[in-house]
Amino acid sequence: MSTIPNRLAALREQMQEHHLDAYLIPDSDPHCSEYLSEHWQGRRWISGFTGTAGSVVITQNQAGLWTDGRYYIQAEEQLSGSGIVLFRAADPNVPDWNLWLQQVLPVGSRVGFDGDTVSIDQAQALLDHGLEIAPEYDLLNIAWQDRPAPPLGPVFEHSEEFAGLTVADKLAELRQSMLQHKTDFQLVNSLDDIAWLFNIRGTDLPYCPLVLSHALVGSEQCWLFIEPDKMPDSLSDKLRQQGVTLQDYQSCAAKLAQLPSSATLRLDSAVTNITLYQQLPASIKVQRGQQLTTALKAVKNSTEQKHFRQCMRDDGVAMVRFMRWLEEKVPTGKVTELSAEAKLESLRQEITGYQQPSFRTIAGYLAHGAKMHYAATSESDVTVEQHGFFLVDSGGQFPNGTTDITRTFNFGSLTDKEREDYTLVLKAFISLSKARFKQGCRGTQIDALARAPLWERGIDYGCGTGHGVGFFLNVHEGPHSLSQKWIDEPLQPSMTVTIEPGIYREGEYGIRIENILLVVEDITTEFGTFYRFEPLTLAPINTLPVVRSLLSDNEILWLNRYHQHVYDSLSPILETDEREWLKQQTAAL
Amino acid sequence: MSTIPNRLAALREQMQEHHLDAYLIPDSDPHCSEYLSEHWQGRRWISGFTGTAGSVVITQNQAGLWTDGRYYIQAEEQLSGSGIVLFRAADPNVPDWNLWLQQVLPVGSRVGFDGDTVSIDQAQALLDHGLEIAPEYDLLNIAWQDRPAPPLGPVFEHSEEFAGLTVADKLAELRQSMLQHKTDFQLVNSLDDIAWLFNIRGTDLPYCPLVLSHALVGSEQCWLFIEPDKMPDSLSDKLRQQGVTLQDYQSCAAKLAQLPSSATLRLDSAVTNITLYQQLPASIKVQRGQQLTTALKAVKNSTEQKHFRQCMRDDGVAMVRFMRWLEEKVPTGKVTELSAEAKLESLRQEITGYQQPSFRTIAGYLAHGAKMHYAATSESDVTVEQHGFFLVDSGGQFPNGTTDITRTFNFGSLTDKEREDYTLVLKAFISLSKARFKQGCRGTQIDALARAPLWERGIDYGCGTGHGVGFFLNVHEGPHSLSQKWIDEPLQPSMTVTIEPGIYREGEYGIRIENILLVVEDITTEFGTFYRFEPLTLAPINTLPVVRSLLSDNEILWLNRYHQHVYDSLSPILETDEREWLKQQTAAL
Repeated sequence: MSTIPNRLAALREQMQEHHLDAYLIPDSDPHCSEYLSEHWQGRRWISGFTGTAGSVVITQNQAGLWTDGRYYIQAEEQLSGSGIVLFRAADPNVPDWNLWLQQVLPVGSRVGFDGDTVSIDQAQALLDHGLEIAPEYDLLNIAWQDRPAPPLGPVFEHSEEFAGLTVADKLAELRQSMLQHKTDFQLVNSLDDIAWLFNIRGTDLPYCPLVLSHALVGSEQCWLFIEPDKMPDSLSDKLRQQGVTLQDYQSCAAKLAQLPSSATLRLDSAVTNITLYQQLPASIKVQRGQQLTTALKAVKNSTEQKHFRQCMRDDGVAMVRFMRWLEEKVPTGKVTELSAEAKLESLRQEITGYQQPSFRTIAGYLAHGAKMHYAATSESDVTVEQHGFFLVDSGGQFPNGTTDITRTFNFGSLTDKEREDYTLVLKAFISLSKARFKQGCRGTQIDALARAPLWERGIDYGCGTGHGVGFFLNVHEGPHSLSQKWIDEPLQPSMTVTIEPGIYREGEYGIRIENILLVVEDITTEFGTFYRFEPLTLAPINTLPVVRSLLSDNEILWLNRYHQHVYDSLSPILETDEREWLKQQTAAL
Repeated sequence: MSTIPNRLAALREQMQEHHLDAYLIPDSDPHCSEYLSEHWQGRRWISGFTGTAGSVVITQNQAGLWTDGRYYIQAEEQLSGSGIVLFRAADPNVPDWNLWLQQVLPVGSRVGFDGDTVSIDQAQALLDHGLEIAPEYDLLNIAWQDRPAPPLGPVFEHSEEFAGLTVADKLAELRQSMLQHKTDFQLVNSLDDIAWLFNIRGTDLPYCPLVLSHALVGSEQCWLFIEPDKMPDSLSDKLRQQGVTLQDYQSCAAKLAQLPSSATLRLDSAVTNITLYQQLPASIKVQRGQQLTTALKAVKNSTEQKHFRQCMRDDGVAMVRFMRWLEEKVPTGKVTELSAEAKLESLRQEITGYQQPSFRTIAGYLAHGAKMHYAATSESDVTVEQHGFFLVDSGGQFPNGTTDITRTFNFGSLTDKEREDYTLVLKAFISLSKARFKQGCRGTQIDALARAPLWERGIDYGCGTGHGVGFFLNVHEGPHSLSQKWIDEPLQPSMTVTIEPGIYREGEYGIRIENILLVVEDITTEFGTFYRFEPLTLAPINTLPVVRSLLSDNEILWLNRYHQHVYDSLSPILETDEREWLKQQTAAL
């Protein structure tokens, strides 16, 4: 097996041959996906860094990896001896790769990359920094000899029973939005938007039931670019009957090149790659903006909501069984992070329709819990003991929804500081969960309601408070979020969102509590319309560590009501002894 | 006196003569000031609407006035019969004037205006909507026959004793910032930035101690464009000694036209008018961005802080005397909104150095208090009685600071709803006043801490929560604010800001409580550095209406500590009976 320095040397040789002063390997695929299939794990191959976010830039003399705060510790360890320098991308005054290249290279230097994996925005940023771009070089294809092929997983239908709308319905909705936005064509390039629009699911990516494909929607016609072998004939026929033209995955570029010269095409320059963009006829008018599918997908219809609720009950039962198992087994000294992860996975596999985890489970005991995106390995795995915290963040993909839940457990003694921290996280979690907020609010405008109780003690968490969740799609779904970062997307009724504040004490422990919630309309007064969150996730929240005096009466009331709701929802489908156990776990504080 | 329809007719005649399809009279002067001297009150003249915000657009057949939520009721009344239609600019789906013009006029129509009063951004927006601009027409000069001349008020020095820094110091700071931002020249066009930079004050504008002027700062030279007659010789000499070249106010345009062809000039396109912009040589590089003076001005130096505290003590004494006077006189039935305003003004005039109100006092009894920017007139004036709320929002300009304070009084019976509303406003006010927040926070990210207690009851206020405050400058000073609107300006230590939540029940009453506070560094922990607010305003907050059970222990603690601080600060400079009165007013709840 080649070493990292050998790989870098091989790549640099290729760079020299093609007169490239730098080479960019971003953390991406042709669809700017979050989770990548093996073919597009070039950054992992070249650097040895296995985190789920990070990009590498290489010059003849230097190499850097840019990743965010979740991965600083892991990246430092994995890059050691590689010759690749870590850039802490989330820290103040750390240059991004554009600025860094501008600093280390002369003006007009050539930056090569595989244009399939670089968005229009990323390419533009390089140009804006006085660099030339050479998007036609997929050097990994040469240097990476045992590179896995692009995935060819089967495609299956996500039926109307779950989706609530036919493809024809969705196309009609989309075309109405296109009319309002005065665009002739919509290019849909992100895989979850495509899966949503065509009621299809697949297995091309880890954790997300998506299919490699592009889509182009016009006012009359509509093209889905997908490998024909992936699709069962019955599904192809059904799509054709609803007005969808099926073409090869690779033929999207050619189709774009043939767009009518006076057409207006809408695309999202953050999720469309530069290679596709370069195909467009110079004469067409490009309307940049969010894909119009994104807003439609984010608001869950009543059928999706009905299924989501059922999915949460099933997932809640798995969680209840998991918690009981932990309670019984941890004292035997035989539970490790990996065995707990495996147990939870086996419990979800008992649920009809379960497909796969919605992301890599984070099961972190003690200091491992402080790494926000810790993934246990056989080397790091430890036994869970009867003191301290065990943080478990997990979720599943089901035909009737996507789950994402964090609970933080303890099975014995805790220090006063641990109890206080736990209660503060719970307080932050409840503060936002129970908030009523004005119609029109962006997540940025209410995120502080979760942080304020932590800030009061000089505590903060270095990530967002929550994210949208897809319906049997990406576990992280936009356009909205709950975050300090400004995202100009009002929270709207029937959007899903997680609330997941935490305290992460490096080298000590991590605490996080997370539910998925639905935005619902609450009341209208002379001052306007107000919304609130309705919890979808159904699982008890550990109350053993709670310092009651730190919670207000209203907070305790919310918690008791939530627990009553969990009990009422889950108890009819539990075994007698499980029901008894849940009764205790959800007892009023 | 000419009627509004006559004025419109006169203007339309001028428009026809000059082939203008529309004419824009914005709410502005050549410096995009908030408060305007009489010469630039053209919008008031043409429309009869006397609010402090509103712009008029006229075509041959239609005319519209755009104003915000504070003025809907007043504008409706004042526009009645004028032929001018009100556009509620803050409401959803109301077109701005650019969009409206695009809708009512053919593409390529000519929009005339006085380019002195239209910012680069405003002119660009017209162009972006397919309109042609004709900035060379100050038609008011012809139609408005008794138009007042531009002001020629005297200029006086704002000495280093108050400013803390010499002009040379400030120029050095600014030039360092220019070096960092790689600009050769900074155009300073907003009058408060100019007054700050040159330690000058004047009387050209109402409520703001400012002087009509432009400034241009280069790496070596520096020009202040100002009418020479305004400035005492001693001050001119002092400025020259510190490297300032003085030139006529009107010569700024010519100077800009002569900038070196390869120069980089920084300007703020939101506060620079299009006429000035059009003077620039085509070859120079224009760097658009906030004037670099703005950030320097916003962070108050230690001398300014010291004076601000003294100023707040003086203003607090005036407020204490005003409150006692109200308490004594209201029961006699002889206090009206206008007489209360006059009394408060006379009390401020007793303070050494007092110059003028920092804005038009809002003294609103009962339903008048619900109009956020109510200004009593002899027609609207009412007697303040012993029931309900009397809202008084006022402030003064002093050489040692600018004040802005709101208190809501009552002198007898209140309903339960009134008591509850009052307590909720107090709760909102305290929630944010006592907040600890993370370094880097923008106002948008913490604004909800004030709103949450109101939202919980289905209540909101349709304006920001607070604004920066100048030092013997504008009472509304950027760049930061506390608002739901995204403003990408972190709150920084030594910035001033008001906190002023309210409840406004149309036709019933208004409640607002407002302090000025200073952002100060609080603590640094493993999670980062945190800031908090320190109240600068020193005046008791009416506790008579408080429903104690609605406040948390922490909120009561904050209030008691604030009141103790008010008492400790003011009592040494009060008369004995005043001190006794204050003791009662500030007694712990």
